Amino acid sequence: MKTNKIFFGAAYYDEYMPYDRIDTDMQMMKKAGMNTIRIAESTWSTMEPHDGVFDFTHLTRMLDKAEEYGMQVIIGTPTYAIPAWLVRKYPDVLAVTEKGRGLYGHRQNMDITHPGYLFHAERIIRRLMEQTAHRKCVIGFQIDNETRAYDTSGPNVQEAFKDYLKEQFTDIDEFNMAFGLDYWSNRINSWDDFPDVRGTINGSLKGEFRKFQRKLVTDFLNWQIDIVNEYKRDDQFITHNFDYGWNGYSFGMQPEVNQYEASAKMTVAGTDIYHPSAASLTGAEIAFGGSLMRSLKKDNYLVMETQAQGNTGWLPYPGQLRLQAYSHIASGANSVMYWHWHSIHNAIESYWKGVLSHNLKENATYREASVIGSEFNKIGTRINNLTKRNDVAIMVDNDSLTGLNEFPINENFHYNDVLRWIFDALYRINAECDFIPQNATSEELSAYKLIIVPAMYSSSDSVGRRLSDYVGNGGSLIMTFKSMFSDKYLKIHCDDQPYGMTECFGMTYDQFTCDSPNLCNTCFNADNTRVTNFMELLVPDTASVLASYDNPAYKGYAAVTMNRYRKGTASYIGCHFDGQSLEKLLLFLCKDAGIELSGLNFPVIRKKGINSFGKEIIFYFNYADTPCTVNITADGEDIFSGKAVSNGDCITIGPWDLFIMEVLK
Amino acid sequence: MKTNKIFFGAAYYDEYMPYDRIDTDMQMMKKAGMNTIRIAESTWSTMEPHDGVFDFTHLTRMLDKAEEYGMQVIIGTPTYAIPAWLVRKYPDVLAVTEKGRGLYGHRQNMDITHPGYLFHAERIIRRLMEQTAHRKCVIGFQIDNETRAYDTSGPNVQEAFKDYLKEQFTDIDEFNMAFGLDYWSNRINSWDDFPDVRGTINGSLKGEFRKFQRKLVTDFLNWQIDIVNEYKRDDQFITHNFDYGWNGYSFGMQPEVNQYEASAKMTVAGTDIYHPSAASLTGAEIAFGGSLMRSLKKDNYLVMETQAQGNTGWLPYPGQLRLQAYSHIASGANSVMYWHWHSIHNAIESYWKGVLSHNLKENATYREASVIGSEFNKIGTRINNLTKRNDVAIMVDNDSLTGLNEFPINENFHYNDVLRWIFDALYRINAECDFIPQNATSEELSAYKLIIVPAMYSSSDSVGRRLSDYVGNGGSLIMTFKSMFSDKYLKIHCDDQPYGMTECFGMTYDQFTCDSPNLCNTCFNADNTRVTNFMELLVPDTASVLASYDNPAYKGYAAVTMNRYRKGTASYIGCHFDGQSLEKLLLFLCKDAGIELSGLNFPVIRKKGINSFGKEIIFYFNYADTPCTVNITADGEDIFSGKAVSNGDCITIGPWDLFIMEVLK
Amino acid sequence: MKTNKIFFGAAYYDEYMPYDRIDTDMQMMKKAGMNTIRIAESTWSTMEPHDGVFDFTHLTRMLDKAEEYGMQVIIGTPTYAIPAWLVRKYPDVLAVTEKGRGLYGHRQNMDITHPGYLFHAERIIRRLMEQTAHRKCVIGFQIDNETRAYDTSGPNVQEAFKDYLKEQFTDIDEFNMAFGLDYWSNRINSWDDFPDVRGTINGSLKGEFRKFQRKLVTDFLNWQIDIVNEYKRDDQFITHNFDYGWNGYSFGMQPEVNQYEASAKMTVAGTDIYHPSAASLTGAEIAFGGSLMRSLKKDNYLVMETQAQGNTGWLPYPGQLRLQAYSHIASGANSVMYWHWHSIHNAIESYWKGVLSHNLKENATYREASVIGSEFNKIGTRINNLTKRNDVAIMVDNDSLTGLNEFPINENFHYNDVLRWIFDALYRINAECDFIPQNATSEELSAYKLIIVPAMYSSSDSVGRRLSDYVGNGGSLIMTFKSMFSDKYLKIHCDDQPYGMTECFGMTYDQFTCDSPNLCNTCFNADNTRVTNFMELLVPDTASVLASYDNPAYKGYAAVTMNRYRKGTASYIGCHFDGQSLEKLLLFLCKDAGIELSGLNFPVIRKKGINSFGKEIIFYFNYADTPCTVNITADGEDIFSGKAVSNGDCITIGPWDLFIMEVLK
Repeated sequence: MKTNKIFFGAAYYDEYMPYDRIDTDMQMMKKAGMNTIRIAESTWSTMEPHDGVFDFTHLTRMLDKAEEYGMQVIIGTPTYAIPAWLVRKYPDVLAVTEKGRGLYGHRQNMDITHPGYLFHAERIIRRLMEQTAHRKCVIGFQIDNETRAYDTSGPNVQEAFKDYLKEQFTDIDEFNMAFGLDYWSNRINSWDDFPDVRGTINGSLKGEFRKFQRKLVTDFLNWQIDIVNEYKRDDQFITHNFDYGWNGYSFGMQPEVNQYEASAKMTVAGTDIYHPSAASLTGAEIAFGGSLMRSLKKDNYLVMETQAQGNTGWLPYPGQLRLQAYSHIASGANSVMYWHWHSIHNAIESYWKGVLSHNLKENATYREASVIGSEFNKIGTRINNLTKRNDVAIMVDNDSLTGLNEFPINENFHYNDVLRWIFDALYRINAECDFIPQNATSEELSAYKLIIVPAMYSSSDSVGRRLSDYVGNGGSLIMTFKSMFSDKYLKIHCDDQPYGMTECFGMTYDQFTCDSPNLCNTCFNADNTRVTNFMELLVPDTASVLASYDNPAYKGYAAVTMNRYRKGTASYIGCHFDGQSLEKLLLFLCKDAGIELSGLNFPVIRKKGINSFGKEIIFYFNYADTPCTVNITADGEDIFSGKAVSNGDCITIGPWDLFIMEVLK
Repeated sequence: MKTNKIFFGAAYYDEYMPYDRIDTDMQMMKKAGMNTIRIAESTWSTMEPHDGVFDFTHLTRMLDKAEEYGMQVIIGTPTYAIPAWLVRKYPDVLAVTEKGRGLYGHRQNMDITHPGYLFHAERIIRRLMEQTAHRKCVIGFQIDNETRAYDTSGPNVQEAFKDYLKEQFTDIDEFNMAFGLDYWSNRINSWDDFPDVRGTINGSLKGEFRKFQRKLVTDFLNWQIDIVNEYKRDDQFITHNFDYGWNGYSFGMQPEVNQYEASAKMTVAGTDIYHPSAASLTGAEIAFGGSLMRSLKKDNYLVMETQAQGNTGWLPYPGQLRLQAYSHIASGANSVMYWHWHSIHNAIESYWKGVLSHNLKENATYREASVIGSEFNKIGTRINNLTKRNDVAIMVDNDSLTGLNEFPINENFHYNDVLRWIFDALYRINAECDFIPQNATSEELSAYKLIIVPAMYSSSDSVGRRLSDYVGNGGSLIMTFKSMFSDKYLKIHCDDQPYGMTECFGMTYDQFTCDSPNLCNTCFNADNTRVTNFMELLVPDTASVLASYDNPAYKGYAAVTMNRYRKGTASYIGCHFDGQSLEKLLLFLCKDAGIELSGLNFPVIRKKGINSFGKEIIFYFNYADTPCTVNITADGEDIFSGKAVSNGDCITIGPWDLFIMEVLK
Repeated sequence: MKTNKIFFGAAYYDEYMPYDRIDTDMQMMKKAGMNTIRIAESTWSTMEPHDGVFDFTHLTRMLDKAEEYGMQVIIGTPTYAIPAWLVRKYPDVLAVTEKGRGLYGHRQNMDITHPGYLFHAERIIRRLMEQTAHRKCVIGFQIDNETRAYDTSGPNVQEAFKDYLKEQFTDIDEFNMAFGLDYWSNRINSWDDFPDVRGTINGSLKGEFRKFQRKLVTDFLNWQIDIVNEYKRDDQFITHNFDYGWNGYSFGMQPEVNQYEASAKMTVAGTDIYHPSAASLTGAEIAFGGSLMRSLKKDNYLVMETQAQGNTGWLPYPGQLRLQAYSHIASGANSVMYWHWHSIHNAIESYWKGVLSHNLKENATYREASVIGSEFNKIGTRINNLTKRNDVAIMVDNDSLTGLNEFPINENFHYNDVLRWIFDALYRINAECDFIPQNATSEELSAYKLIIVPAMYSSSDSVGRRLSDYVGNGGSLIMTFKSMFSDKYLKIHCDDQPYGMTECFGMTYDQFTCDSPNLCNTCFNADNTRVTNFMELLVPDTASVLASYDNPAYKGYAAVTMNRYRKGTASYIGCHFDGQSLEKLLLFLCKDAGIELSGLNFPVIRKKGINSFGKEIIFYFNYADTPCTVNITADGEDIFSGKAVSNGDCITIGPWDLFIMEVLK
């Protein structure tokens, strides 16, 4: 979705304010150059204090003031945090999970398929829409928030899962075969014997149940979208706040949502991105989340939430808030919205601090936000709506993610670790990339010079063919260990690995281990790199060997291979090792794939895009506490100062600072 | 409570003995110079084997023998360990906690508000009192043991909690506002909607429930006190066995009891203190527990339990048992009672060993106890009933302790860590101190030259005023980070921090993080000290800066400040760092506060007090395995040898040994 | 049980195969020299898809093919993994444990005393026997698999436990005394008051419940044996698949089974042994498990399962599979059976790989197995049925194992750690040993020159007498700390320790701790060895001191003692330290006991036995990735090459290789 300006603002909760200060806040936001607030999500119990009794005082007041002060408003449906009265009315609205039935208190604890929940959720959404859809200030709607299935797995959900299975398998023998249920006598000879899936040790069945739960999420979001669509104006958008795997911060794919499917009916993808800051700030999470969100709908996206002061220990150093804001925009975001305006005074998340601290006064963070706001107002339209064309794509797959949870490489090494290993190395060598799903068409694949497939454990048969064809037609492919190993039900192929692609890769393997030899004979200058976590014993056929293992026990096996297959090249990374060595390997393979890199390396990050006026914008970010120098490679204009810069110029960027230029054409 | 001698003895359980040896034991105790036993606590099922059937054989036998051998007896009510038959009769007597209903087996697992429990507890207490109150040997009563609420939170308790809240809040909107329940739709619009508090994620509500549970403890203890008071003679005392936070040993405040309130109606405070020993023995726990117990009623206290051989690994080195005993006395204890006389042969706690090992013979520990007993009999009356006047007080607060559990600094750093950080540094520089509660009056505050307030996260408004006035009137105040941050409902103030005291401290702050710069520009010689766990970015106004942070990102902020406010001085420690640097800072600040320190440092510990005869007693302890030398600073008498010592003498104290002198006046 | 050849093969599951390949598999096995498969265990739901509906298609097909290809078959009863329909029929067939009632899914989750389970288990066993007992290819039966009680502790089990206690104690007072139930008011004054044993904190009671659960296992196995005996031919054997404590691999005694009792009615002991491999392979687990299994029935045993490729990370280096196979045989095994033939394609345990990888083709592991098979076919009859006569025995005791779980030394140091500390040191100095149970008769004891008793915490009175007599009659005894401490109910003796043996050891002690001084004054050259985990303060009487503690606090105490008692010698190791120093001590004590050792040390391992033809066979194993040289000490024949070797010859053994000779007589 293209926007007429960068949406800059924050989530705003009049409901939580310790005293009436809405005018003060609106004035402070305006002064900071902010233009957008997000409201209403998570406040169901305020809007509907009793069953069927509605009170939109706070809402109306915020809308009125927004219009008075010329702020745009995004309305969130409040359905991800249920009121206490709903639990009193339907005690079983709390999801039954593997841990049993939960207690009221936490958000995101309900059974999203419960009819009582759906009835009341629909009612509050409709009432909310009636209050807001016609309002001038309202520019769009966020459906629910960070929706997941919350592991709902009560009897009703299990019955639905059984129906879902029956649709796929009319013959129960085929079902047993597909899932390997004969093992440990788990065979189900009648659907009536179907046991409580929460207890299953069958990884295929558990994996399918996870897939089913992801489908519940998509269905639930689409159900809300349909309701909202009945009310919204054409100029209003629908989005969601997608999040990620969580490793103390946004890390990798969100296992519980199929975001490609869930975003299909939305106007625009939205997201929240949280990450370490201060001395640990790298920008990698911003780039990762941005690449994924941009790829969901192949379009710009909205940052619905990101940190201002953030969690304790994330307080940004001077300059970092601004560095982060532009990093989002440079990845294709059309908004920077903080979570949240003011810090919370009690309840929970009081130490996930907003723009303002608890004293609600101007502070260092507010002042830096004001700089950003001021700049956005000046040059924002020149850098939003960026169109990005990348040569590299990473193929991601949620089924492989959860599949590898059921059949883990080891307990501390997961799909997202492999994905981020690949992504972060690309990020650090400044090879911008998109994400593509497993079911990307051949045409979609052909748009890239290089496709990287990390740990795609589970796949349908057609994927291997499409990827082989992609290579055959001249593409470059890199695949890592643990790919193409099982079918879509996580059943391991009883054929040579990597399944269906041995010819393409010119190698095969059937043994693997987790020993820790060093790499040797590497053609990318990484001898003596220690193998970690996992290694496959590759048996090259037509492939050439890019790296071997130095332990005599593995003599004759390869660690990394490269194969010229028809018009293209297929490389295979059979083991895990440190990120720095991976950067060397990827530099080698990018060059082989004909991808021109800038030669810049982290902590200098370069991002590019074409703006609404068809101009190329180049961002240089310095993710370090010392200055860096960068050689300019085109004539253009420093977007902040308006001064000309010329190809060959050498500019200096201060600590945690950036440089943006518009290229002359 | 003053006593005519040091109570020296042990908990004694005739019930647990593998064979009849009561005469042997009494003789051994007498030989060791012991004079007191504590009996009966935890033996309900022996005294009431069936509902309403009583058997006081063991009890009577112990009382008879005590009188025969001239031993004093303290009677413990047995109510903290319930009989199996009571659970059969009332299965719901077992407390429902966050983990659900418990199973029988453990002690301290019942709902202390259950009417059936109370009925039967009252009956056994009354029967026990009838058996014991008139007995000559019985000098006092211990009410229950280490009482807590055991997280009882079943429906009945939650109803009572609701009533407790309703009393505070007649307007439910005020209740919602005070607790921030709007957050995540937790708003309660009708008391009937009040959800299961066990599930709440609202830190204010959970914190209040913890406070309510502490009130249940006070109520329960007072209820028992009232019963005992109906029976006891005037010369008999009532006490309790208070314990502490537990970190593998007694560590900091007990979070589950408000000991100031709970001890109010008792004659004398009693306690159990357990601590590392052998190479890890420091005496800090003895001093900490002693300071707290002495402060509860501003009087001497009883050590009801402390370790003899103790837990595995605590076996004292030669000399340590004696060193410990005198350390208790020097802190103001009037008793040293071991838990327990004999080691347990099975069941549980068999490796928490008593004076005697399992063979029940004289051993190394018994022999050292005999030395103590012999000495106490000679010089005990010269060192008990010590009156201690300290210049320094630490303000402690249980609500802040549990408040910081709900809103933790980080998961490994808690209130008690800050409290012990402060206390231990004082201990090591030999600045003896008292503890004062948050609601200490201005008069009570004015008794001290220096008051230190660690991490007093939660406070009522009046505290800040009283502390400011204390400074204004000439007092010295030291406060640490995370103080004065929230109100009594853990609602963070929406005003400048430290709340209500910015003028007093001459600084404010609104941002904080957990980075780890070094301190710099310190005026207490601790540059390059690494900041750990937490740091506030102090913005000095009138305050002078005692330490800054060396990271350029924090330029302009202070780490430690000192402010001359009216007649006094208010210093603020904005971050955490190592204990050795804190000692330097406290030495600096003590000097500034006009406190004369001895110049002695750990491992030499000096304690002082005035005995019953108005004489000053000075104890020198050597907490090390090598000898130390100490310069005597007054004329007096070596209390053990009777020899004169003179001001300026230099004496040598052996490893784990001590020296006690009575000062000539 | 003697066998006419080494059983070499694998567990085989036609049920799990992704497609029909039974002929291929049989041909591949034959080609690899395999002769035996184990089938049917864990496949109940395949054989009985619905209650009372039987389908033996897979079974019959495997038997037919086995006979066609001349393979032997071992039939496993399928009862350790129950079908889903059984749980639908009897929901309470799932065991209630300390965690509540389980969910269906996992194997080994049922109440093995449930009448419905027993009824249906008996029926499927009988039907299976009808199908198999008469078949020519069937050589024996494995009863269930790795049976345990699965912590079944529902009300019915607890009632049975109460009956079991009542049989031992007619007087409830004696029961209370024996278990120390007075402690913490746990006294049970009426059997009707008996509380839920799952909640008990009484270590004696919990320990007795564990013993009772072990009895349930023995009873259950014997019940199955009786059924199978009704059908089996005389030439068919009954065995079981015993396993071990699990520490990520087979480690120490299995706490949940009394294997001496459980194996009594079996024809032959069977076992599965799993262990680290690759760089971590030592052979210690093979020797440990082998020594235990050989000792259960004082006979050869069967390896029913061991790893082929094994768990991820266990992929053997070239040569290791063969090294392992001969290591089993050299310990007295008459079979090497892999778990399992083919790798599993989904469900669970897919990464516990068989001989074949998932592609089901010949691979490196298969090729090495084929070498083994070929050699076994040539020289197998010269090395199976080995009779081993050892001078050293270790006394093991399951009650002490679980007793020390209730009364742990520390949370990371358990009985099996002490047992393996002793065993591994013996293994590394090449002192082969047997295991003997606590109730071994005096005659059984007298068969050994040296008996070592590690951590025998719990014992009946007679054991001390038997061991003292053994020493008195000239035997050498080594006992470690934590032995002879409690009676059979885990009640600690109220007499001098080690109970009943102070005269024999010429020392006593009553104090212990977990400090960490160094050893000093050692007569086995291990001064400055750090004491770890636990130490007793031994007070020597007639004993001489082999080692002391260097901390002055422990002056006068001994760490290791040796006592000449009548005709023999009793040594006592009072503390734990590193394995290398223990090897030195054991070398010293073995020499004193008149045991001739080879002087060889790990990584060279030597094992010996007398074959069916009365010839002595000596195995030399090189557990290292570099070659070793060994001096031959007898004239004989290289069993592989047939070449003569002579006393004094020096041979070289390659990495992970071995040498076997038959001694000329």
